[in-house]
Amino acid sequence: MTADTIIAADIRINARWLIPVEPFGEVLEDQAVLLLGDRIEAIVSQREADQSYRAREVINLPNHVVLPGLINMHGHAAMSLFRGLADDLPLMTWLNDHIWPAEGRFVSERFIADGTQLAMAEMLRTGTTCFSDMYFFPEIAAQMARDAGMRAQVCFPLMEMPTAWGSGPDEYLAKGEALLREWRDDPWVRIAIGPHAPYTVADNTLERAVTLQQSSGAALQIHLHETAFEVEEALRQTGQRPIARMQALGVLNAHSQCVHMTTLDDNDMAMVASSGTHIIHCPESNLKLASGFCPVHALQKAGTNVAIGTDGAASNNDLDLFGELSTAAMLAKAVSGDAAALGAHEALAMATINGARALGRSHELGSLKPGKQADLIAVDLSDPFLQPVYDPASHLVYSNHGRQVSHSWIAGVPQVQDGRLTRIDVPDLMLRVSDWHQRIAGADRPAS
Amino acid sequence: MTADTIIAADIRINARWLIPVEPFGEVLEDQAVLLLGDRIEAIVSQREADQSYRAREVINLPNHVVLPGLINMHGHAAMSLFRGLADDLPLMTWLNDHIWPAEGRFVSERFIADGTQLAMAEMLRTGTTCFSDMYFFPEIAAQMARDAGMRAQVCFPLMEMPTAWGSGPDEYLAKGEALLREWRDDPWVRIAIGPHAPYTVADNTLERAVTLQQSSGAALQIHLHETAFEVEEALRQTGQRPIARMQALGVLNAHSQCVHMTTLDDNDMAMVASSGTHIIHCPESNLKLASGFCPVHALQKAGTNVAIGTDGAASNNDLDLFGELSTAAMLAKAVSGDAAALGAHEALAMATINGARALGRSHELGSLKPGKQADLIAVDLSDPFLQPVYDPASHLVYSNHGRQVSHSWIAGVPQVQDGRLTRIDVPDLMLRVSDWHQRIAGADRPAS
Repeated sequence: MTADTIIAADIRINARWLIPVEPFGEVLEDQAVLLLGDRIEAIVSQREADQSYRAREVINLPNHVVLPGLINMHGHAAMSLFRGLADDLPLMTWLNDHIWPAEGRFVSERFIADGTQLAMAEMLRTGTTCFSDMYFFPEIAAQMARDAGMRAQVCFPLMEMPTAWGSGPDEYLAKGEALLREWRDDPWVRIAIGPHAPYTVADNTLERAVTLQQSSGAALQIHLHETAFEVEEALRQTGQRPIARMQALGVLNAHSQCVHMTTLDDNDMAMVASSGTHIIHCPESNLKLASGFCPVHALQKAGTNVAIGTDGAASNNDLDLFGELSTAAMLAKAVSGDAAALGAHEALAMATINGARALGRSHELGSLKPGKQADLIAVDLSDPFLQPVYDPASHLVYSNHGRQVSHSWIAGVPQVQDGRLTRIDVPDLMLRVSDWHQRIAGADRPAS
Repeated sequence: MTADTIIAADIRINARWLIPVEPFGEVLEDQAVLLLGDRIEAIVSQREADQSYRAREVINLPNHVVLPGLINMHGHAAMSLFRGLADDLPLMTWLNDHIWPAEGRFVSERFIADGTQLAMAEMLRTGTTCFSDMYFFPEIAAQMARDAGMRAQVCFPLMEMPTAWGSGPDEYLAKGEALLREWRDDPWVRIAIGPHAPYTVADNTLERAVTLQQSSGAALQIHLHETAFEVEEALRQTGQRPIARMQALGVLNAHSQCVHMTTLDDNDMAMVASSGTHIIHCPESNLKLASGFCPVHALQKAGTNVAIGTDGAASNNDLDLFGELSTAAMLAKAVSGDAAALGAHEALAMATINGARALGRSHELGSLKPGKQADLIAVDLSDPFLQPVYDPASHLVYSNHGRQVSHSWIAGVPQVQDGRLTRIDVPDLMLRVSDWHQRIAGADRPAS
């Protein structure tokens, strides 16, 4: 390339370190990332960028590592308004005495709008650029994501019981189909099918979900094998493990995402691997609710794609995916008995390209490559208590918190600049959250 | 009390919330903590403080929770200079190819001084006011803690092998005895006896350690049952579990602290409970090195005192005790299969009063009570992504990071003010750390 071939770009990001995720394990130094429109135009050395590119805006990040935006593959965003409402309780007490009464009383379109915005603000601030959601009023969550310019997979809920959003499977499926049509091919928001769990959805409803999946090409996400109790009860009642039932109904396929998966035997793992279904690991929720341990390392060795999610803030109690990555990497070692299991680069892949694969969007999201969408973040490693920095990948996973995220772009649009959100009015949001806090705290009177 | 009885105090802290730890589980609102000299003079309502106290200095903390300073009961402070040097490796590769060569080449009095200061700065910044240390050149670590005004238990190393600090047990014990004499009754620094582990210390050396413990009244800290391998090897070589050997040698007693304890059967737990020995749980180190799981909930139910430690930054990779608490609380639920195990208040007790009990200093440290030492911290809960706050104890354990610590006092002396360290010159420290970074990174050339 000669010096007179000058290529235009919108934004040039000068990065001390760059972890593109693809190729795996690479840490580049002193690179320039050039963005043009909503895409990555080029990734070149800073010297080459000086010679060959001219950008409207140059952002210098001399102590930062730049990597793909994180993908949080499972959550219930609006539940952020219930953060810390009730902890340290057996699952059924938590649900029966606190969460379900609070949901019954407060969940509305307004609640979903404010709670989803609170969750998105926290996720953006801590490095997530794309999230999956499964909660009531998915049309509101989808619109909130679109308004914020955040990527989302919004799973419409599907179960036998009536909820504030619908009377039962017929209405859920009808509303869901309408949403699938409305949002088809949207670059930010994808609608997915969200059957809640094996124990809340009947066989014929699951069959209708799979039929809709096939006709629409949509992804499907389901809670599966969350606890040993779920598996034991199913065996007692039906003689069949939930995963075998899902396999028979066609739910396990290359466009499905199974969340939790804590009670798996070798046969289950083989079934998962041969189906090509994706696993969404939620380590902190699994620990905090005493659900069990997902055998991440064994699943990966069997060839299964494992992505990661925080679950809702009511059972975590934060949406910081960097914290979740640290827990995932540490826990996988202990569960497999192998200190070399789920290394830092594998953890970063889990939160980026593996999420993109589960979404069916790995051609455009999940790694930093020319032509891919410009969804990327920068993490400032200059904090005194991150020193010394021998290996930025290690620091991102084992020493970092999401609050060190300094910058974030989605489709080339800045979302975080110097640690501040650009598109969500946080003071206004805090007033609304404070209002919900007063109302919910006033109503939460446990029987005890 | 009449209005004309005005009591003088040095500092008045107006706290939105106060968690005194004793009595257990209490969360008080709008309290004033009055400090006089190095002690807590009184804890009263703000209204009563207005009427009855006059303080030289008033600190308003309208969005903060005030609690006792945290006690980090196990670490190797100076190893902070090896933070992230080598991760995701089997234990023996990590030690043989990275840590031991680096220690052999770099550990010196200067290294200990700078590394200990780096660790203390991080610990202070994240809410720790008292720490236990076990590493080479304990006389340097002790002096660094004293200079910083930080409380410490400094364990002098004891093992069969020669190190940079001494030629073997005779010299270690002689130097240790001198340190015990030198620091006797110091309010900041206590010297303790630090036999490394059952597999590095011979019976007669352990007997000498117990004899010294009895004559000096010093505490003793030892790594014990860190891994299943340690237990299996001991059984193979001696026919005896390490814990049984420690029991026979008198090591298990009410002034001893056993660190890790991941491979325990019912008989081991009964032995621990009847001996009154204290357990130091290091959950993140145990996970990251795939060591195993400490049955915290079962130990506590058996009546054993369990405190908490981060272990060294080389195997964690940070010294943020709030993050460790979160991991401990979540992990105890999963390991015991009980979501109600190790609740938020129990976790906070583990990092405060339980640590003080292990140190034999619960009469003066570990909770906020009139007459106790003024070692306390404040955590700012006004961060947008900690909202809403239904229960400050839950937020401290499940949603918080140490960086939210805004204030800290040790013996009434401010150590952190508005998130800034008052007594450690961080920019100067960073220059020295950068220098070590260059030297260590240049020398770490793994065989691979």
